[in-house]
Amino acid sequence: MGGPVVCFGELLVRLSAPANEVLLQSQKLDVCFGGAETNVAVNLAKLGHASKMVTVTADNALGHAARDELRRHGVDVSGVRFAPGRMGLYFLTPGAGQRPSQVLYDRAGSAFAERAGEIDWDQALAGADRLHVSGVTPAVGPQAAKAAVAATKAARRLGVKVSMDGNYRPGLWALWDGDAPTILYEILQQADILFGDHRDIGLILRKPVGEGDAEALRAAAAKTAFEAFPSLTLMACTDRVVHSANDNDLTGFAFTRDGAWRTEPRNLSPIIDRIGGGDAFAAGMLHGVLEGLGEQASLDFAVAAAALKHAIPGDFNLVSRADVEGLLSGSGLDVKR
Amino acid sequence: MGGPVVCFGELLVRLSAPANEVLLQSQKLDVCFGGAETNVAVNLAKLGHASKMVTVTADNALGHAARDELRRHGVDVSGVRFAPGRMGLYFLTPGAGQRPSQVLYDRAGSAFAERAGEIDWDQALAGADRLHVSGVTPAVGPQAAKAAVAATKAARRLGVKVSMDGNYRPGLWALWDGDAPTILYEILQQADILFGDHRDIGLILRKPVGEGDAEALRAAAAKTAFEAFPSLTLMACTDRVVHSANDNDLTGFAFTRDGAWRTEPRNLSPIIDRIGGGDAFAAGMLHGVLEGLGEQASLDFAVAAAALKHAIPGDFNLVSRADVEGLLSGSGLDVKR
Amino acid sequence: MGGPVVCFGELLVRLSAPANEVLLQSQKLDVCFGGAETNVAVNLAKLGHASKMVTVTADNALGHAARDELRRHGVDVSGVRFAPGRMGLYFLTPGAGQRPSQVLYDRAGSAFAERAGEIDWDQALAGADRLHVSGVTPAVGPQAAKAAVAATKAARRLGVKVSMDGNYRPGLWALWDGDAPTILYEILQQADILFGDHRDIGLILRKPVGEGDAEALRAAAAKTAFEAFPSLTLMACTDRVVHSANDNDLTGFAFTRDGAWRTEPRNLSPIIDRIGGGDAFAAGMLHGVLEGLGEQASLDFAVAAAALKHAIPGDFNLVSRADVEGLLSGSGLDVKR
Amino acid sequence: MGGPVVCFGELLVRLSAPANEVLLQSQKLDVCFGGAETNVAVNLAKLGHASKMVTVTADNALGHAARDELRRHGVDVSGVRFAPGRMGLYFLTPGAGQRPSQVLYDRAGSAFAERAGEIDWDQALAGADRLHVSGVTPAVGPQAAKAAVAATKAARRLGVKVSMDGNYRPGLWALWDGDAPTILYEILQQADILFGDHRDIGLILRKPVGEGDAEALRAAAAKTAFEAFPSLTLMACTDRVVHSANDNDLTGFAFTRDGAWRTEPRNLSPIIDRIGGGDAFAAGMLHGVLEGLGEQASLDFAVAAAALKHAIPGDFNLVSRADVEGLLSGSGLDVKR
Amino acid sequence: MGGPVVCFGELLVRLSAPANEVLLQSQKLDVCFGGAETNVAVNLAKLGHASKMVTVTADNALGHAARDELRRHGVDVSGVRFAPGRMGLYFLTPGAGQRPSQVLYDRAGSAFAERAGEIDWDQALAGADRLHVSGVTPAVGPQAAKAAVAATKAARRLGVKVSMDGNYRPGLWALWDGDAPTILYEILQQADILFGDHRDIGLILRKPVGEGDAEALRAAAAKTAFEAFPSLTLMACTDRVVHSANDNDLTGFAFTRDGAWRTEPRNLSPIIDRIGGGDAFAAGMLHGVLEGLGEQASLDFAVAAAALKHAIPGDFNLVSRADVEGLLSGSGLDVKR
Amino acid sequence: MGGPVVCFGELLVRLSAPANEVLLQSQKLDVCFGGAETNVAVNLAKLGHASKMVTVTADNALGHAARDELRRHGVDVSGVRFAPGRMGLYFLTPGAGQRPSQVLYDRAGSAFAERAGEIDWDQALAGADRLHVSGVTPAVGPQAAKAAVAATKAARRLGVKVSMDGNYRPGLWALWDGDAPTILYEILQQADILFGDHRDIGLILRKPVGEGDAEALRAAAAKTAFEAFPSLTLMACTDRVVHSANDNDLTGFAFTRDGAWRTEPRNLSPIIDRIGGGDAFAAGMLHGVLEGLGEQASLDFAVAAAALKHAIPGDFNLVSRADVEGLLSGSGLDVKR
Repeated sequence: MGGPVVCFGELLVRLSAPANEVLLQSQKLDVCFGGAETNVAVNLAKLGHASKMVTVTADNALGHAARDELRRHGVDVSGVRFAPGRMGLYFLTPGAGQRPSQVLYDRAGSAFAERAGEIDWDQALAGADRLHVSGVTPAVGPQAAKAAVAATKAARRLGVKVSMDGNYRPGLWALWDGDAPTILYEILQQADILFGDHRDIGLILRKPVGEGDAEALRAAAAKTAFEAFPSLTLMACTDRVVHSANDNDLTGFAFTRDGAWRTEPRNLSPIIDRIGGGDAFAAGMLHGVLEGLGEQASLDFAVAAAALKHAIPGDFNLVSRADVEGLLSGSGLDVKR
Repeated sequence: MGGPVVCFGELLVRLSAPANEVLLQSQKLDVCFGGAETNVAVNLAKLGHASKMVTVTADNALGHAARDELRRHGVDVSGVRFAPGRMGLYFLTPGAGQRPSQVLYDRAGSAFAERAGEIDWDQALAGADRLHVSGVTPAVGPQAAKAAVAATKAARRLGVKVSMDGNYRPGLWALWDGDAPTILYEILQQADILFGDHRDIGLILRKPVGEGDAEALRAAAAKTAFEAFPSLTLMACTDRVVHSANDNDLTGFAFTRDGAWRTEPRNLSPIIDRIGGGDAFAAGMLHGVLEGLGEQASLDFAVAAAALKHAIPGDFNLVSRADVEGLLSGSGLDVKR
Repeated sequence: MGGPVVCFGELLVRLSAPANEVLLQSQKLDVCFGGAETNVAVNLAKLGHASKMVTVTADNALGHAARDELRRHGVDVSGVRFAPGRMGLYFLTPGAGQRPSQVLYDRAGSAFAERAGEIDWDQALAGADRLHVSGVTPAVGPQAAKAAVAATKAARRLGVKVSMDGNYRPGLWALWDGDAPTILYEILQQADILFGDHRDIGLILRKPVGEGDAEALRAAAAKTAFEAFPSLTLMACTDRVVHSANDNDLTGFAFTRDGAWRTEPRNLSPIIDRIGGGDAFAAGMLHGVLEGLGEQASLDFAVAAAALKHAIPGDFNLVSRADVEGLLSGSGLDVKR
Repeated sequence: MGGPVVCFGELLVRLSAPANEVLLQSQKLDVCFGGAETNVAVNLAKLGHASKMVTVTADNALGHAARDELRRHGVDVSGVRFAPGRMGLYFLTPGAGQRPSQVLYDRAGSAFAERAGEIDWDQALAGADRLHVSGVTPAVGPQAAKAAVAATKAARRLGVKVSMDGNYRPGLWALWDGDAPTILYEILQQADILFGDHRDIGLILRKPVGEGDAEALRAAAAKTAFEAFPSLTLMACTDRVVHSANDNDLTGFAFTRDGAWRTEPRNLSPIIDRIGGGDAFAAGMLHGVLEGLGEQASLDFAVAAAALKHAIPGDFNLVSRADVEGLLSGSGLDVKR
Repeated sequence: MGGPVVCFGELLVRLSAPANEVLLQSQKLDVCFGGAETNVAVNLAKLGHASKMVTVTADNALGHAARDELRRHGVDVSGVRFAPGRMGLYFLTPGAGQRPSQVLYDRAGSAFAERAGEIDWDQALAGADRLHVSGVTPAVGPQAAKAAVAATKAARRLGVKVSMDGNYRPGLWALWDGDAPTILYEILQQADILFGDHRDIGLILRKPVGEGDAEALRAAAAKTAFEAFPSLTLMACTDRVVHSANDNDLTGFAFTRDGAWRTEPRNLSPIIDRIGGGDAFAAGMLHGVLEGLGEQASLDFAVAAAALKHAIPGDFNLVSRADVEGLLSGSGLDVKR
Repeated sequence: MGGPVVCFGELLVRLSAPANEVLLQSQKLDVCFGGAETNVAVNLAKLGHASKMVTVTADNALGHAARDELRRHGVDVSGVRFAPGRMGLYFLTPGAGQRPSQVLYDRAGSAFAERAGEIDWDQALAGADRLHVSGVTPAVGPQAAKAAVAATKAARRLGVKVSMDGNYRPGLWALWDGDAPTILYEILQQADILFGDHRDIGLILRKPVGEGDAEALRAAAAKTAFEAFPSLTLMACTDRVVHSANDNDLTGFAFTRDGAWRTEPRNLSPIIDRIGGGDAFAAGMLHGVLEGLGEQASLDFAVAAAALKHAIPGDFNLVSRADVEGLLSGSGLDVKR
């Protein structure tokens, strides 16, 4: 096993309404930890890879518990830095049927937003195999945006490969009037892998990309991306058809400069927890890359991993490599004894 | 905003088996408040309308908590009268798959059943915009039946328009050998809006109504109803196709003396809580009427509101106008961030 | 009502992850009792039949609670014998969507495994109408295997008819290197009813049985079984098509020496609890046999009973005869009031 | 073991606020079964005695579940008769610290209140060793009062000894303006054992009894009782000093025509569940009587049993004879391994 | 009933560890609403007084739910203003035994902190009987501090009497380097009632006050306060002796310019929820003042109310006037039936 | 920080009755991980020391979750070895008031019991600062006993100091007829620290030790121990006075060859969770030794740490060094804000 995949982003506390309730309908909340890059770090660790979280979080009981939870799942937490301030939160009302899930972010003024710029990237990336960052991280605020750019540039300089997940969050960017296209462009210039689709490319390049069906749109986006970003070697994404809040179909797509791959649509029903599905896909693809599985096998693995995530409560994809391979093996979905 | 919609009916405590259990399988019950007209009152308040509950309930911790819960959701509770006696209850075993939901009423001898006749309707309806009552209320017992007739007659006299929801409950009528057709006929004579279908009209007029498919049956019922009840101007109802206890299709129908409207079937799956779906539909239609949306828009709103209710635990449709409009807007059912 | 159906097998404590979690994701477990023959005993009692559990279990708080739970549901527990040792457990991670359920047995060294041989079968079967045993029981260990053979032979000698449910559990047999085919063959020689299919017959006779679709395979197995086991008069089984962990179709098949019957597929969705579905089917067929309903009615009842089981948490099918008949009556799946 | 102790009274569903909340503060209720005589029946069964419940209860899911729960704990339920009507309920707000527990009865119009008179006492008491009834039963209503008198008279006639627990509930008597003293007098005339104190005797004889400290008052009451009721041979009661809702001291007293016994005060702290403490005491004394332990040993056992009840949630004293003896043995209250 | 008592402060969401756990030990949190002045508003409403909350809170699902909860308990919410921003939170780890409770505030940057200055006090106080504010409100930040001063000055000008609760929170003041003594001094100049003791007076006047035992210290503080603040007519406070996190003694003290009163210590054990105890005391005193009960009766009521609060989970004292009077009446702490 | 404290013992899953229930009263169990040495490992990590768990556990979902939980709390899990077999369990019925806690072990045939002998101690102890083992470990069975002796001898040989906690469990020794005195004697010969008292010394030396009060008994035991075991330098223990299951007093005692120390009794009330109290004491003493605090400060720290453990659910003492020091600092037990 090489060096760890370093994941850079904010640790979040997630507070969600239990048992299909609307938020605060009753006097209970389920609580877990999450965040896009956090999820990737945990998922990679569960799949047997070395992963390391680099972040700044609140030096209080919440931040310490978040660190502990990452450690529980095998993530290297030596890059978790504690600082005064509050911890980023989000409130989730999980959807059901015709009622969509709702995320209410409460991340303003967090220790991460205020202090992400203090990270020493040469130290944080020492020995790393890859760096993973998503578009949520720069959206958190100017400090975080600067840090994300600095991190990816440092990685490039140090020969650490970079993957970026688009994860466009207009609501977060709007809070500080951040220039998303410029910043994401800068980050993507350093990346060899993009988890994103035509919407991400359209946003970053400030022009609509492609037309046609789901596959055509994504293929056009890949073509455009490979032209615009010389270092990019792989773009992977999904198409999600949403029949109801609990019933989606997920199809995976992957593109290199030389080829295109896709999976059959996989029906996700009932969806137990929609959050973290994209991060599970990204971690699944990274697993394939790290293991050298080839594009089709990586994509199949990634979609299967994402499918399992939808069947597990919380942000994290608490499955092993064997669980994903079991789903792919065709051994069926009846009880395993 | 005009005067409130006055809702007249019994406040009920609902005690339901948790987590898909059968009743009393474990030693926990979920508890909430409900009742057909209560639900309409709460739903209207959540949609931004003035609504007022007129009822008699037990002068004890249960009755007080019921009043508080209505107040929580913005219902005017100045017409909630406390009296000695017990509170009406119902035990619910929510269904799942091939197991239908079961309601066990425990309403005999309640403060409402014993004292509903003591309400002064001139006072209760003063300033009201509309009165809403359902067929459950007179089914509770002779006192309640008299009160329901008196309420609707007073409303007519005072120029307060009346809506009635059929809600036929043979089990309740049977307990006191009540003459449902005669009493419901008398109430319906005062109404301008009926939430009901061919089964209600057939019961009230003591003869089968129409033949053919779901739409034909309802159209025939509307025709018959408009003939029999001169004050009636609108009849609205749904057709529910029950694939399983958790998977239904709901289609809305509306009829005036001049036209007929319907919606596409909306699939409700998974159904989180089936109870209160009809009341959500009625409140949605009343919303359309109060806002002057026109029949098609009202019906679309009503079915969308009912669809959301099926995705929320408890009797109440804890959604805002924006939630319903969001569903109608086609913005999709994936996570809202 | 004749004598009881004696069910012989191990009482198990089931510890399952709550609320769609993976095992030990949170610090709560749901706990109930189960075991293949236990389930049949409880199900028969709930359907109004005399049933009696014969077993050996731990003489501690767990064993006593298990006995009490059987008594709660009306099973005759006079044949439950307490002995030193541990109680058999199993940990269940209920599946969801693309994530299959997982059973983790923890039955090694149980009081049953160590002491099942001490039962006096003449006494245990005195007055019994039938004996029911499944293939799990001999799989528990050599003592249990000997006891299962002894029980069925004693039954045959005493004129007590025997039903056997295949329930092949390779994992359990492997733990003690048990010779499943030989032992199950010996048991099946005593039986007049087999709940099993081509896989069971193929295992027991050590050769593949039949080819073709689900029905052809089962018909071929029945033909082979009736040839190999002269005392056998009825073979019944299901075909389960697994769309997802929560969405299966279940079809019932029954065969005698003279005829074949089947049901329409019944869709089970959402499945609340998959465990015990086969035992509910077996109990439903035994109900038909005890009541003399005839093959088709028995099979319809058994599949309907199994369908209801899938909608109830826990191993037991907590439904009455009226519940099953209600499902068969076509009265629909909407709320019963 | 002789014939069973027959307990006659109403089965109740208890609905209690969880986790120290006030009633309906949250949307959860804990539910269990109870009732004074029910508790005695269960407690005796747990102590290893034959006990039989004679009652009328609702022929619905609640009544059936209540019957099952008694059966779970080993009570003979062949005397539980199902009838149309509702089941008696009570809502409990458990107290804490300076906040006393509150019981809200909802028993009016129950199947028991309406039909208790239909019991055939010759049949119900056939083979019985003793009959136990409390002052709550006649308080439920005129039918129940008549039945209680009839039961005790039949017992006397059949040679079945009778114990009565005072359990004066003025609120219940007031609902139907029942003449408590006369009716309780009539019942007590048939009894050989009274669980009661100076308040009961004062009520029944319509005059204050005794003066002085707790012991003097009870001794005076015993003297008066033995004079007034020739068949009485034993009077036992407790003195409860209430420091807070969770911290009481309990002292036991017993009197025969020849002697007096008492225990040291036993501190009960923290009290987990106060309800059923008196019934546990009564069952403990009956245990002593049935076992012929002698007055002091019986009283010690009864107070120890009552102490354990206060440490167990629910109405029932879910302890074995060994548990009570363990407490009496002086083996201490540290962890038992 | 005169005009309402206007309470001005921040609505808080409280997130607390359940079941004696440390924060985030498990994946559940209990959630309720609170805040010092919010608590007083709710408590007064529960005691039957008109109370009105004036605040600014987040215009999102949390803020709306907070408003609804106040409305549930009968508080006038017409002065609750919604604004963009986040809602103030606090995380609570309830203590037990030797482990003290811990409060972790997360209030920085809240809608209240940012916008409290926008309230129009002439409008907010129109028709009010009294204004209540605590020392937490100005501690939230400079905007809130200005608003608190403005509110009390406007009240003085409008003839609305002012009560202030010291509630010194050094941690909050330190976050923005606020000059607590100066600001609290300015507020207290407008007040006729101070809920505070020698520590508050010492802080505000920047010098230690008094010496001796609990009573002497408070008497000295009262003397000093009456000298320094001419408008002050009443100072009330408690002395809390902390035996353990769950076992305190509470004694009440009241001082006017003419006299001094005190209560006996009241033992609070077990303490179910310590938070809001001081607010319950303040609301109890205000009840006495509004009802004209006189100092001793008011103080007795206030300490009894505070005692009951310690026995109820959540910030709010969910008791009625009758509950407090029941505790004072000496009717005892055993079960009320 | 030097090398880690290696803790050798069995990882246990603890399954406990929730909410003061008796075992399996309801259908829920709380689950956590524990075991005497596990607890010490976690507690030391929480106090900031390097600790490493050396054990063999089941290679299944339970074992993996146990490993993860240790990792969560910062324990080095590189010495956790997975093997086929079952995991040791224990069922706990927490006591309350007059009802003592009950532990039901279910550890027979565990992976640890079968495979503890396979550990390579030179490797396991490489770089270690100390080894900690308790008397439970050899009690598990002959393999475990041999391993415990081997471990301590290897430690002695490698210059790794050894602490032993007596933890005598007669029930476990009895299951395999183990010769406790001989084996514990052999282990204690290698130790420099004994956590134990006169009962441990009496058992190991097969003769009663000392007489008199708690302190005299322990002093006599220390004297005897120092004579019998030349390598021993420190003996520490507690005296627990058990007023009720929830109310104990704990006093600490420490002895060296040169001196004796004791603490004041510390009242533990209410006890939230009694289990792990002794392990918290041991970890607290080891903290003192590792930090060189001196005997009195170490003992004070240990008793305070143990006190905090009694206020936290689960086996682990989830407190930081600052929490313990806070308790010792006299800052009081009221809310910390």
